[in-house]
Amino acid sequence: MRKIAVVGFGQTKFGELWDKSLRDLAAEAGALALKDSTLDAKRIEALYVGSMAPGRFAGQEHLAAMAADQLGLNPIPATRTEAACASGATAFREAVNAVASGKHNIVMALGAEKMTDLKTSEATTALMGAGDQEWEAGIGLTFPGLYALMARAHMAKYGTTSQQLSTVSVINHRHGAKNKKAQYPFEITLEQVMRSPMVADPLRLLDCSPITDGAAAVIVASEDVAKKLNPAWVLSVQQASDSVALHDRASFTEINAACVAAKKAYEEAKLSAKGIDVAEVHDCFSINEILAVEALGFCPAGKGGEFVEANAVAVGGEKPTNTTGGLKSIGHPVGATGIRQIGDIYLQLTGRSCNQVKGAKRGIALNVGGSGATANVTILGGNV
Amino acid sequence: MRKIAVVGFGQTKFGELWDKSLRDLAAEAGALALKDSTLDAKRIEALYVGSMAPGRFAGQEHLAAMAADQLGLNPIPATRTEAACASGATAFREAVNAVASGKHNIVMALGAEKMTDLKTSEATTALMGAGDQEWEAGIGLTFPGLYALMARAHMAKYGTTSQQLSTVSVINHRHGAKNKKAQYPFEITLEQVMRSPMVADPLRLLDCSPITDGAAAVIVASEDVAKKLNPAWVLSVQQASDSVALHDRASFTEINAACVAAKKAYEEAKLSAKGIDVAEVHDCFSINEILAVEALGFCPAGKGGEFVEANAVAVGGEKPTNTTGGLKSIGHPVGATGIRQIGDIYLQLTGRSCNQVKGAKRGIALNVGGSGATANVTILGGNV
Repeated sequence: MRKIAVVGFGQTKFGELWDKSLRDLAAEAGALALKDSTLDAKRIEALYVGSMAPGRFAGQEHLAAMAADQLGLNPIPATRTEAACASGATAFREAVNAVASGKHNIVMALGAEKMTDLKTSEATTALMGAGDQEWEAGIGLTFPGLYALMARAHMAKYGTTSQQLSTVSVINHRHGAKNKKAQYPFEITLEQVMRSPMVADPLRLLDCSPITDGAAAVIVASEDVAKKLNPAWVLSVQQASDSVALHDRASFTEINAACVAAKKAYEEAKLSAKGIDVAEVHDCFSINEILAVEALGFCPAGKGGEFVEANAVAVGGEKPTNTTGGLKSIGHPVGATGIRQIGDIYLQLTGRSCNQVKGAKRGIALNVGGSGATANVTILGGNV
Repeated sequence: MRKIAVVGFGQTKFGELWDKSLRDLAAEAGALALKDSTLDAKRIEALYVGSMAPGRFAGQEHLAAMAADQLGLNPIPATRTEAACASGATAFREAVNAVASGKHNIVMALGAEKMTDLKTSEATTALMGAGDQEWEAGIGLTFPGLYALMARAHMAKYGTTSQQLSTVSVINHRHGAKNKKAQYPFEITLEQVMRSPMVADPLRLLDCSPITDGAAAVIVASEDVAKKLNPAWVLSVQQASDSVALHDRASFTEINAACVAAKKAYEEAKLSAKGIDVAEVHDCFSINEILAVEALGFCPAGKGGEFVEANAVAVGGEKPTNTTGGLKSIGHPVGATGIRQIGDIYLQLTGRSCNQVKGAKRGIALNVGGSGATANVTILGGNV
C-alpha cells in the first residue's frame, strides 16, 4: 500500500448548536481542516462524510453531495458512509482506500451529526437504529440499556465496580476541561458521578455521553503531497463486524469486533500495545472505555476497571487515553466522533494537543458502532 | 490500478414483498451472488451495502453489519454507503477501491431497500431526504415535482414532447415483460401511459418508477481470482457531484454530474459512446432516461426524446438501454438499483440476460442520486 498521511484537521465546537444547521457544521469543519492543511480546496479530489442518521435527525440524506457543494468542492465524488456510531471512522477508512487505490491523492474525510433538533425521546429512538430493530428495539431496549447489560456482565465476571465506571467519567472530564471545543469543558467529582440519576442500572447520567451537534474533518494525502505538509502517517486502518444484536454475540464482556480490529491493526502497523503513546477510545458509556482498554491490549481482559482506577489512562499515566475529554466531555455527535478521535490523535502526533502528551510518537483510535457490531481501529505515527 | 472484475450477481424479486424484511432481502441477494460466483462465503473479505434510508423506511441503520452477520460473513469489515438513489453504485465504487488498494481481493457490494412498509405519503417524505431539506422540501417540492421541472425545461428548450416521455416507459415495459425479477413484468401501451393520472405536470403516473422492496448484490474480485471464474472486467468507475438543490445548478436541461462522470468514465476506459453495446440508465422518471442518453453521449444534447422515439434504446436498436426493464418496470428499491444495474450489465456481458443483446462486449451503467447531485458511471467489459 502507498504511504498515506493525515495532513490537516478541523473541528467545530461540539454542543447544543441551535444556531447552526447540519450543512453549516459540515462546511465549517471542512473549511477548518483545509486551513489547517494549508491546501487549497481545489486540491481535494474526493469527499467521504460519516453520518449515522442525518435523515432521522434532520430530514437530510445525500449529505456528502451537500457538504461538497457547500465547501465548493463539486463536482468531485462525494459519498456518505454509515456504520452507526463508527460512521466517522468508516469515512476515514474509505478515504484511505481511495488514496491507496491510486485513484486519488488528496481526499477529505468528514463526520457530522446534528442531533439536538429532536426531543430526547425521539433522539433515543433514532439512535436505537444502531441496534437490531426486530430483536432489540422491539422489546424496548435502548443504548443505555444495552451497555448496562454489558456493564453488569463485566461486574459479575470480573468484579468491576461502579466506582471504577465513574472514574472513567471523572478522568475524561479532567482532560476535557482543557478542550475549548468540548461540549462540557469542566471537571466533575467522583461523588457527582456516583450520585447522578440512574439511567440504566449500573449506568448513571454521568456515565453516559451526551447528545451533541458537531462536525470534524481530516484531510488524507499520498506521500508525495504529505511530506511537504505536517503529516501523521497512517500505520493501519482496520475494521471488523459482529452481530448487531447483543444476544447473538459469543461474549458480553468483550467487544469481539474491537479485539479483532485491534489485533489486525497491530499486525498491519507491526506494533504491539507497548508501542502506543496515546489513545482515543469510544466512551459512549463509561463501561465502553473499560472494554476498550482491554480490547486494545493496554491491560489484560477483566482488568480494565483497575487500570482506569490506577490512573493509567490519565495524561501522565501509562497509556494516556481520551486526553482531550473523550465522548463524555467533548460530546458525541455520532457521525463526527470517529473523525474527531483521529483528528485529536493527529494533533497529539504533531505536538498541538490541548493536553499534549510529551514525545507522543504513535497513537491509536478505537471507534465503536452500536453495541459493538462495528469497530474501527486506526493507528497513526508521527513524522519521526 | 489492478485489474478487477465482477464475478457474480444475485437479485431478489423486486416488488411489494410484505413477507420479507430488509434483513431477509439483503441476505437473499448476497447468497444468490455467492452462488452465482461459485465462491464460498468464507472468501468474502469486506462488504459494502448501499441503502438510502433504511432508518426512515425500516427503523434500521447499521445495515451493513447486519447483512454481514445474516450472511455469516462477520467479522469482516462492513460499511453502508449512501448517496440517495445512487447509493448502490457508491457501494460498488467502494468495493472496487477496496480491491484496487490491494487491501482486499474479494469484496461484496450489496444494495437493499425496504420501502413499502411506509404509507406512500411517508415514503415520499423519506425520499425527499435526497433533496435539499431547507430549500426544496421546505417549500413542498417532491421528487416527481423536481423531475417535472426538469422535463418542462427540456420541453421548452428542445421541443421534447409528452409522447417521447411516454415512449420511454413503453419501451422499458416491453423489455421488462421478459424479466422474472421485475415488479411489473408486463407491456403497457402508449395510450395507457398518456392517459394515466397526472402526478406532476408533465409527468404522469406511468412516467414514474414505483416504490419497491428489493435487494441485489455483486461480487468484485482481483484479476487472479476473477480469471478462474466468469468475469466482466471493470473498465471504469467514476462518480461526480453537484448541488443537492436543483435551483443552484448551472442548467436544468442536463445533469451535469452525469456528464462529468460519463466523460471521465470514457477517458478511464479509453472508449467513446460508440464502443458501448448495452446500457442501464436511471429512469426514475421518464425524463431522466432522456437526460441519460444525452449525458452518455448516445445522442446530442436535446435529441434524447427523438432518440427514444426512434427506438434507438430498444433491444435491436442502436444503443439497447434498460434491456431488462429499467427502474420503471423492474422497480426501484433505491439503494438496490445501482447494484441491480451493474448486475444486469454483467449478465449481458456473460451472455445470460433475460433479453440478451447478441455479442454485447461493453456495457455502461448510470446511477443517479436525487435530482442529479450524485451520478455514478460504471463501464464493464466482457471477457474478450
